[in-house]
Amino acid sequence: MKQMQYAGAVSRLIGELARLPGIGTKTAQRLAFFLLNAPPEVAISLAEAIREAREKVGRCSVCGNLTDVDPCPVCQNETRDKGIICVVQDPRDVVAIEKYRGFKGVYHVLHGALSPLEGVGPQELNIKSLLDRLAGDSVREVILATNPDVEGDATALYLARLIKPLGVKVTRLARGLPVGAHLEYADEVTLGRAIEGRLEIE
Amino acid sequence: MKQMQYAGAVSRLIGELARLPGIGTKTAQRLAFFLLNAPPEVAISLAEAIREAREKVGRCSVCGNLTDVDPCPVCQNETRDKGIICVVQDPRDVVAIEKYRGFKGVYHVLHGALSPLEGVGPQELNIKSLLDRLAGDSVREVILATNPDVEGDATALYLARLIKPLGVKVTRLARGLPVGAHLEYADEVTLGRAIEGRLEIE
Repeated sequence: MKQMQYAGAVSRLIGELARLPGIGTKTAQRLAFFLLNAPPEVAISLAEAIREAREKVGRCSVCGNLTDVDPCPVCQNETRDKGIICVVQDPRDVVAIEKYRGFKGVYHVLHGALSPLEGVGPQELNIKSLLDRLAGDSVREVILATNPDVEGDATALYLARLIKPLGVKVTRLARGLPVGAHLEYADEVTLGRAIEGRLEIE
Repeated sequence: MKQMQYAGAVSRLIGELARLPGIGTKTAQRLAFFLLNAPPEVAISLAEAIREAREKVGRCSVCGNLTDVDPCPVCQNETRDKGIICVVQDPRDVVAIEKYRGFKGVYHVLHGALSPLEGVGPQELNIKSLLDRLAGDSVREVILATNPDVEGDATALYLARLIKPLGVKVTRLARGLPVGAHLEYADEVTLGRAIEGRLEIE
């Protein structure tokens, strides 16, 4: 009702912005007025960027990561070890791991995790093309780098059961205390995992 | 640097979203991936709404409010009392007052408040056209409805000194306790204003 008072185009803009996740009506109003008051090129280049991204960006036919060239730069890169596939839930996870710079394998992006409550089953995830990639003999190891939460663990378990029979080594990221963390603030589950996974100092 | 890892069009979209006020890089990433994963029409209609708003929406030549018809619906409305002008800082303030439904006058939107620290002087505000509107004899009262803060009060004082010599009645919104408030949580300045402005019960 509130938006009825604004001019039609303003009201429509507020409505569209409010559809974005985490953006309520008040924030949508603030953003709309920013876009209307800023120099025209600010708004136009945002509109262009949205349109361009939707038109140019798609999923890599090999790994499923978002890309504007197919295959994506990582899959095209001859120096990457195609024998190790790191399976992640989200394109953002690829970026996070790339920042570490120590991983020289390739990726596979699931675009989600198994979640029966939200109706996400194996068919909704990018799993079939992962199994296709494992059909040859070239892959030596699959690293399951799904999130360390209920959905991520369930997805990893599901994938491990599918992949192990193929004779491929399956690993999982280590659990433990984050670097720089204080023991007293660690939750008991993390602490438990850190104790269970303790390493001998050599 | 982080965004270098994304495809060019994704990176550009994140960058454009991060220029919006209150949107950091993480939120921009989240919004970008939402736009890329949602059905195409969600992203396209947002891009359209931004472009349409920029193209169609402008300031009313009379009151300065944002509108897609000129003069705006309030200024065109024959049933509104053109003799009372309510001066506000922002188009959102017009919407807030319209919700009250009891005000039958017209508006004048300043598009800001005087703020020497931010380099906002009288020239930056929509003040000259307000004085033009007062040049005839038709306006009986100007209600200064700027925000009850330092900039809003300074702006009201500045406008009052300009307008009073023209022989027009100048008023200010009442200060006091918000309806539904609890005394114990009221700040001392608001409480002081409420006591100073106390009204006799008849």
